[in-house]
Amino acid sequence: MSFDEIIDRRGTHCVKWDMMEPIYKVPAEDGLAMWVADMDFPAPDCVQRAVRDMADHGIYGYFGDDGAYKSAIVSWMETRHGWTVNPAHIFTTHGLVNGTAMCVDAFTEPGDGIVLFTPVYHAFARVIKAADRQVVECEMPVVDGRYALDLEAWDAQMTGSEKMLVLCSPHNPGGRVWTRAELEAVADFARRHDLILVSDEIHHDLVFPGGTHVPMANIEGIEDRLVMMTATTKTFNIAGSHIGNVVISDPELHKRFATRMAALGLSPNSFGLHMATAAYSPEGADWVDDLMTYLEGNRAVFDAGVNAIPGLRSMPLEATYLSWVDFSGTGMERPEFTHRVEQEAKIAVNHGPTFGKGGETFLRFNIATQRARVEEAVERMQRAFADLQ
Amino acid sequence: MSFDEIIDRRGTHCVKWDMMEPIYKVPAEDGLAMWVADMDFPAPDCVQRAVRDMADHGIYGYFGDDGAYKSAIVSWMETRHGWTVNPAHIFTTHGLVNGTAMCVDAFTEPGDGIVLFTPVYHAFARVIKAADRQVVECEMPVVDGRYALDLEAWDAQMTGSEKMLVLCSPHNPGGRVWTRAELEAVADFARRHDLILVSDEIHHDLVFPGGTHVPMANIEGIEDRLVMMTATTKTFNIAGSHIGNVVISDPELHKRFATRMAALGLSPNSFGLHMATAAYSPEGADWVDDLMTYLEGNRAVFDAGVNAIPGLRSMPLEATYLSWVDFSGTGMERPEFTHRVEQEAKIAVNHGPTFGKGGETFLRFNIATQRARVEEAVERMQRAFADLQ
Ligand SMILES: Cc1ncc(COP(=O)(O)O)c(C=O)c1O
Ligand SMILES: Cc1ncc(COP(=O)(O)O)c(C=O)c1O
Repeated sequence: MSFDEIIDRRGTHCVKWDMMEPIYKVPAEDGLAMWVADMDFPAPDCVQRAVRDMADHGIYGYFGDDGAYKSAIVSWMETRHGWTVNPAHIFTTHGLVNGTAMCVDAFTEPGDGIVLFTPVYHAFARVIKAADRQVVECEMPVVDGRYALDLEAWDAQMTGSEKMLVLCSPHNPGGRVWTRAELEAVADFARRHDLILVSDEIHHDLVFPGGTHVPMANIEGIEDRLVMMTATTKTFNIAGSHIGNVVISDPELHKRFATRMAALGLSPNSFGLHMATAAYSPEGADWVDDLMTYLEGNRAVFDAGVNAIPGLRSMPLEATYLSWVDFSGTGMERPEFTHRVEQEAKIAVNHGPTFGKGGETFLRFNIATQRARVEEAVERMQRAFADLQ
Repeated sequence: MSFDEIIDRRGTHCVKWDMMEPIYKVPAEDGLAMWVADMDFPAPDCVQRAVRDMADHGIYGYFGDDGAYKSAIVSWMETRHGWTVNPAHIFTTHGLVNGTAMCVDAFTEPGDGIVLFTPVYHAFARVIKAADRQVVECEMPVVDGRYALDLEAWDAQMTGSEKMLVLCSPHNPGGRVWTRAELEAVADFARRHDLILVSDEIHHDLVFPGGTHVPMANIEGIEDRLVMMTATTKTFNIAGSHIGNVVISDPELHKRFATRMAALGLSPNSFGLHMATAAYSPEGADWVDDLMTYLEGNRAVFDAGVNAIPGLRSMPLEATYLSWVDFSGTGMERPEFTHRVEQEAKIAVNHGPTFGKGGETFLRFNIATQRARVEEAVERMQRAFADLQ
């Protein structure tokens, strides 16, 4: 299969292509969907075969032993990330929005503060607020064009009512792969303020060649307050299967999480289990390597094209396929640049402010699509902002 | 397709066949799995096609608009059950164990009493206890060989700390289809004791020819305290897809449930949505009619065979494929009759006591399998209890 092959996703109930018109008024007919974080590529053959095998079997009853699923996770984490996971520490949630929400539910109380380094993936704030907890936004400075951590400034922001920190590693949006030194500093920060540290590493496989992701679990002295979250869904483009892993090694935290899982009657669906097991395989690994090479090409095309427009600047992506473009250099107000992107270039994108403080002048572009579409997007953007040339 | 076709489910990670040896020591090689409530039949063609179409499309991203899914529900409920559902009242949960648990979570507090008419589906008590609520068991009397309601006796049992009643309608185990008069009396009981009434109607399509299921929503004067739960999963044998409907028309209850769904970050998986939409169709309806005719034949074989054994008695099933067999007439202790069924007849079954008070002398047999297997089960039972002849 070639990543270049255009597959029409319209009319398949997919949110990315089928909802861009109702939500953003970007026409389904000739719009480009570059918002929701899934890819326009088919899953690897090993995953497709798993779905086809299920289709052929025809019986879709209750799933039993998840031993093979957990072994697949353990072996993937060991091989790809140098992280040794004890299978008994793994919970399977309905994806990681649910995983984050379960952490909020299990480990905090209404009114508690939950720290986010913003701008950050919007669903974090959404579930925190829905659960009547307080979002504590620590705004990241931009240093040398990339996000950085300003832990000293944030120390001063803490009031003592903060109970949890949700870290996005690698970071969405902005695409930072945090260094070991940065992760150690975050761990120190969590300890200093007595915060449970939830490390959402859903993008950990989507690191561009040359970069290395360090699992927070490999940082020393944090395991007694650490929740690790990973999934197959971003890596292999199977988000519809709603499956994710929450890995907790601390016995007390593990028990509290287990109690809530049981009380909420949560257990994983069989499609997610079969697909994830198939994905975490040597064949899946080769596919991810090819994917990252392809996305590297997309990134080059997108960055070159967008950064050629005066006043626009895309953050250099170290990981993820979510390009974070700053429009502040245009001097335009937000409605103006958003209108040009959505209504003139006809591209559906995520709006910066939904990611929290620091996102005001940004739009997020999903470049995990066919190269031709990335090229088309760049051309449309250049036309929509031609007056700046 | 013929319901008679034997499909080997072993080695497919299905819990029913693959876990009977580890759990019950019933050998995988020649054991019969008659426990877990799923069927050994493939789902209807319309559902299989939906899975195959997903396999062929190959992209398994985020699901969007669930309008078609909700329309399918509305039309099924109207056509098959004479129940008019407002689509805005529907929540989609990860199945109905999760649905029940969400009701417990949203509408009660730790320590509150939750009433069950026992014996009843074991997961109710499991999630209630896991959430630190109290299970209040109201034991059903057996009248003319079937379960009956003894609401007057249960009035005396209420202490005022009960906040919710979870009704199973039709009833698992025991297979009662509650009459309109009985349902009215249950509604009165809920009102009298100020209980939220959760009506789990997951078996509502599995009513044998001649019977009629009355949705609790069609009972007058209960809507302000009613939660309806239904699903495609039992009807079409797609429990692995983990999808279910919680329908709440009361605005206050609806809002409380919605708040918890949002706080827990719960949204349905795309497989369940596609499959359920395909299932709730005219083709699906014909399949269910055929299924019930086939199960009627199984019921006849099973009842005749089992009731021919002195001391054994199966409750006459009005609905569900879960036959509830009383061994009290054998005079044997529980370990003795259980041993004979599991180790001599090599049949994996559900143990009565897990269903609560009144289940002590029972075993539950799942007869939703090929006729030949039901016949084989009956023969094995007759041999295992031959000394009683
Ligand atoms: C950081 C992060 N966490 C979680 C998710 C979503 O996870 P899921 O689909 O498993 O709920 C996303 C999706 O974009 C994400 O970027
Ligand atoms: C009454 C009842 N409710 C719920 C369930 C399970 O529902 P789900 O698989 O949707 O969690 C069952 C399964 O046997 C059942 O009998």
